[in-house]
Amino acid sequence: MVNPGDDLADLVLFSLPMSNIEIDQGDILVFAQKIVSKAENRYRQISTQEISREATALAQQTGKPPGLIQLIINESNEIIRAQEGLLIVEHRLGFVCANAGIDQSNTGRGDDWALLLPENPSQSARGIREKIEKKTRKNIGVVIIDSHGRSWRNGTLGLTIGLSGVPALIDFRGKQDMDGRILRLTTVAVADELAAAASLVMGPADEQKPIVHVRGFPYKLGKGQFEDLLRNKDSDIFR
Amino acid sequence: MVNPGDDLADLVLFSLPMSNIEIDQGDILVFAQKIVSKAENRYRQISTQEISREATALAQQTGKPPGLIQLIINESNEIIRAQEGLLIVEHRLGFVCANAGIDQSNTGRGDDWALLLPENPSQSARGIREKIEKKTRKNIGVVIIDSHGRSWRNGTLGLTIGLSGVPALIDFRGKQDMDGRILRLTTVAVADELAAAASLVMGPADEQKPIVHVRGFPYKLGKGQFEDLLRNKDSDIFR
Repeated sequence: MVNPGDDLADLVLFSLPMSNIEIDQGDILVFAQKIVSKAENRYRQISTQEISREATALAQQTGKPPGLIQLIINESNEIIRAQEGLLIVEHRLGFVCANAGIDQSNTGRGDDWALLLPENPSQSARGIREKIEKKTRKNIGVVIIDSHGRSWRNGTLGLTIGLSGVPALIDFRGKQDMDGRILRLTTVAVADELAAAASLVMGPADEQKPIVHVRGFPYKLGKGQFEDLLRNKDSDIFR
Repeated sequence: MVNPGDDLADLVLFSLPMSNIEIDQGDILVFAQKIVSKAENRYRQISTQEISREATALAQQTGKPPGLIQLIINESNEIIRAQEGLLIVEHRLGFVCANAGIDQSNTGRGDDWALLLPENPSQSARGIREKIEKKTRKNIGVVIIDSHGRSWRNGTLGLTIGLSGVPALIDFRGKQDMDGRILRLTTVAVADELAAAASLVMGPADEQKPIVHVRGFPYKLGKGQFEDLLRNKDSDIFR
C-alpha cells in the first residue's frame, strides 16, 4: 500500500533485496500509474468540486456525477466524445483516453474520492530513475503505464503515460530488408510494446504487482521523449 | 527462410532442441504473420491483377499501384479512409488496419510480389497448436501477430490476428477491488498485450526472430475466440 508522500525510489531500493533482484545496467522499471498518483497525493474529493455549466450538461449526458465530470474537465484539453457512462478526452498530457484517466477503484478512500493521473508522469519517472541510478550506479529506464481502451478493438492495453531514459519510438525508416527493399511499416512504438508486456505481468488489480522489473529490453536506453508517442492532432484521421 | 509448403509445426519441433527449449504445459508460441503467410503461399503478383474501376480511382487517390490496390480491395470488407499513400480498411477478418495487412517488404520475390495475410489465421494457429501438442503431449497456446498502426498515437504495436488455445480477453467485471468496490476498467485484451510483448522481442525485421516462446503467461489457457477482440462496428464511436 502506497501512501501520499511515500518515496517510490526508496521503496524500490528497499524491496529489491527481498525479491533477490540486483539492478543491472540497462534494466527498466515499469510502474503502475496508480501508485505514482498515490505517492504524489493526487486524490481529489468529488463532492466538494465547484460545478461548471459544462460539467452539469455533460453529467446529464453521461449519467456520471457532476463532481467527477468537473475533475475530468479540469484534467482535459478537449472533450472528444461524450456518451452514456463515458467521456473520451484529450488529456492535458496530450493523449486521448477515457475519463481523463481518473479512477475510483482501489483508491483506498471510498466512493467520494478519485485519483488523478500524476501531474507530470515523465518528470516523476525521471525523479525515480535519477535516484535509483545514484544509489545503484547503474543506468536504468523508468516507464509509467496506465490501462487504455482503444478504437476498433475490445479490451484495454497497458500503454505508456510517461517515461525517462527509455526510447519511445524506434525508427527503422531507411533500413533495408533482406531483399534490399526499404522497410515500410517502420516506426515501432517500443515503449508501448513494453508497457503492454508489463501490464500483462501486473494484472488488472494494479496495486498487487505495481512495479515490474524488465531485463533484456532489446534497444539501447537513452533520451526518450514521451511526446513522440502522440500523433499530431491535425494528421490524425480518427479525431 | 520459410517457403511455401513448409510445415511450421515441424519447423518448431525441429528447432527447439537447437535452442535448448523443451515445451512445457501452458507455454505459448507466438508467430509473426509473415512466416505463416509464406508457408501458406499467400504470394500474389501485382502486375497480373484485373483492375476494377474502384481500384483505378483509389490508385489515383493514394498514389499506390492499381494492382496493389486491387489486392487490398479483394482482402477487405470495407474501405474506411483513403489518403495519399494509405488505405485504412476493415479487413475481411474483421479488424481495422492499414492496406489490408498486405506487405511488400521481405517477400523474397522483389517488387512485383505482395504477401497477403493468412487465409484464416486462427485456423492456422489451431493447426500448429494441435500438431505440436500431439508430438509433445503438452497443452500449449499459439498466437499469430502483425504490426498495426493505431489512432491517436504514433508507432506500430504488435497485435493479435489469430489465436488458438489462448484467451483473447479476460473479463474482471464483477470482481471486487481492495476496498470492496467493483472494478471498472475491467476487460483486459491479454492476447494483444502478449502480442505486443512478443513483437518487442521479435523486432521489426520479422523474419529474423519470427517465433517467440512464452513461458509464465499469467492466465489459464483454454478456448479463446479471436473475434472477441473485435469491437462491434455499430458500437465503435471511432469508425
